[in-house]
Amino acid sequence: MSPATQYLDVEQPFALRRGASLPGIKLAFETWGELNAERSNAVLLFTGLSPDAHAASSELDPEDGWWEHMIGPGSPINTDIFFVICVNSLGSCKGSTGPASINPQTGQPWRLDFPELSLEDIAAAAQLVVRHLGIEQLCTVMGPSMGGMTTLAWAMQNPQGARHMLVISSAARAEPFSIAIRSLQREMIVSDPQFSGGRYTDEAWPRQGMRLARKLGMVSYRSAIEWQERFGRDLQYRYPKRPFTMNFEVESYLEAAADRFIGAFDPCCYIYLSRAMDWFDASADADNLADALALLHLSSALVIGVDTDLLFPPRQQGEIARTLTRLGIDTRLEMLPSPQGHDAFLVDFENFGNIIGGYFRSIARQEFETQ
Amino acid sequence: MSPATQYLDVEQPFALRRGASLPGIKLAFETWGELNAERSNAVLLFTGLSPDAHAASSELDPEDGWWEHMIGPGSPINTDIFFVICVNSLGSCKGSTGPASINPQTGQPWRLDFPELSLEDIAAAAQLVVRHLGIEQLCTVMGPSMGGMTTLAWAMQNPQGARHMLVISSAARAEPFSIAIRSLQREMIVSDPQFSGGRYTDEAWPRQGMRLARKLGMVSYRSAIEWQERFGRDLQYRYPKRPFTMNFEVESYLEAAADRFIGAFDPCCYIYLSRAMDWFDASADADNLADALALLHLSSALVIGVDTDLLFPPRQQGEIARTLTRLGIDTRLEMLPSPQGHDAFLVDFENFGNIIGGYFRSIARQEFETQ
Repeated sequence: MSPATQYLDVEQPFALRRGASLPGIKLAFETWGELNAERSNAVLLFTGLSPDAHAASSELDPEDGWWEHMIGPGSPINTDIFFVICVNSLGSCKGSTGPASINPQTGQPWRLDFPELSLEDIAAAAQLVVRHLGIEQLCTVMGPSMGGMTTLAWAMQNPQGARHMLVISSAARAEPFSIAIRSLQREMIVSDPQFSGGRYTDEAWPRQGMRLARKLGMVSYRSAIEWQERFGRDLQYRYPKRPFTMNFEVESYLEAAADRFIGAFDPCCYIYLSRAMDWFDASADADNLADALALLHLSSALVIGVDTDLLFPPRQQGEIARTLTRLGIDTRLEMLPSPQGHDAFLVDFENFGNIIGGYFRSIARQEFETQ
Repeated sequence: MSPATQYLDVEQPFALRRGASLPGIKLAFETWGELNAERSNAVLLFTGLSPDAHAASSELDPEDGWWEHMIGPGSPINTDIFFVICVNSLGSCKGSTGPASINPQTGQPWRLDFPELSLEDIAAAAQLVVRHLGIEQLCTVMGPSMGGMTTLAWAMQNPQGARHMLVISSAARAEPFSIAIRSLQREMIVSDPQFSGGRYTDEAWPRQGMRLARKLGMVSYRSAIEWQERFGRDLQYRYPKRPFTMNFEVESYLEAAADRFIGAFDPCCYIYLSRAMDWFDASADADNLADALALLHLSSALVIGVDTDLLFPPRQQGEIARTLTRLGIDTRLEMLPSPQGHDAFLVDFENFGNIIGGYFRSIARQEFETQ
């Protein structure tokens, strides 16, 4: 874990949406900037499925974070003005309690004995950190991908909890195409003989299942156009040529991406978080999305999508933006023409930095510079 | 095999593009309609990766074929006028020689000892059937998906061999996105422990690898829009609920598709044909596609694509059509707005039937009805 990571230990039982409860939870989080005297400048950032809480470097940890150029003094999310909190998702393996943590009742890792987890639980856990930091109302709640879904879940749980909301490359519910991709990834992992019903060890670890799952992830995170421009039909020799793979540069690229991922993420945590995304439907308990979001008390919202996103297609961002507008919330929809697909928010810094920076500057002008 | 299947046994060695040769080959094919006295009404149909030669029913075999409504008396490819030939691809396991066939030198199945196979070899093998049937020049050469690539390969080998060409949901070369998908499918199969380096048996067969590969195939053959309309977030109970899959209707649909496929296709044949698609590049031996196709002597060409096709995106059909037009060939490009993705040619009979029927009627008017 990053030396900048802080922890919140919650000793009371934590009730989960799908019925069970955890005997207590630990939450890893990191912050940047300073909470102002009015405690009004906090930004809560939810992450995608795999990142940890180390979104950006700081004095405590100079290593680049997963959204390095987005957060910092003078950056689009300007920590000279805003106090940013990023919480490692409940269910992850990057410091917060999850299936890889020790079950205190057995002294062994939870693994498949971990109870059913939902994005609503991740949202509720993060709110414990917000309260722990003494914050009554956030300035902004935000997140990309799974983090955007969690942002919506959080906003429904805390309809007056934030003044602004930013949802990036996300959706109000999982649709069957992305469910199919994630279902396949989970099947790859659990059908690897070394998964052993969750009883894998460091020596016998489901490497091949995780490798396949990560490669399929990469296929769904990027776009055909980007790869055609980047790789074309180039051949490569970085990896040994194997009989039925590893001829083409794109295959080598996927192999390298899988290598970086394997060992860095726990297989059980992966399948729990993946399934939680499938289960997410913001309108599950309402007649429709507008009813589900009707209580939201937001001054503004920004919804960003990417036109080449296969996993969270543009119409899903459109649905969120249209619904918020219909509810009378000052909402902007930005649909970016980026070849980088779902992952664009991690790589297309120019477009995302401009739009997100503009949004936070306008919030700062309204709320902080005129004080 | 269908009782309508015919066979051509070629006893001479068959040289393959990538260097090796086969000691002899058997080719399975089926025909519909009658060759006219001038032997001028033949249509050669190449298939996608997995179909056999039984494209449509006939008196000899009343069972529906894989393109049942497209071929027959009065059908879009009207067998009252045209003589249609469909050849099972060399390398397949549906009657033609392939990795599942017996290697006469060992008395055992070839499996991974089968030499490297290319689409050009499939094209050259089919031409042996054409010559065997006494046909000097085809009226039309055609094919969907892999069959469209093979059609291009055949046309380059036989630049004056057909008067018309029809390429459906295909491409002049494999691009990295589709290479990535196929590479992953092959990795799923060969990494299944039961694949055993190709020494699987009926009892220990790589079911799980084939299951995953077929499911990923289905994900890439259809479209997000179709599945959203068809399945939404419906739950299902057709298959037993498994811990991390089988909650949603779309998962059950994929399971059923995989069940139908498993056992019906040989794993080695699958990976050989899959890799042959990756290797295909019509312009590999030329400076560009126009140079590669420059000798083609066609009266007309029709190129059909589908706007939701992930594997063979519209710009790839556009490239073929533009190039043929630039070469002075009377070419039409039809880009269909179908939600059914790459598989639309198998399911969207209304659109495909109309366009293909129109093309063959215009050929019939020009060439046969005015005689």
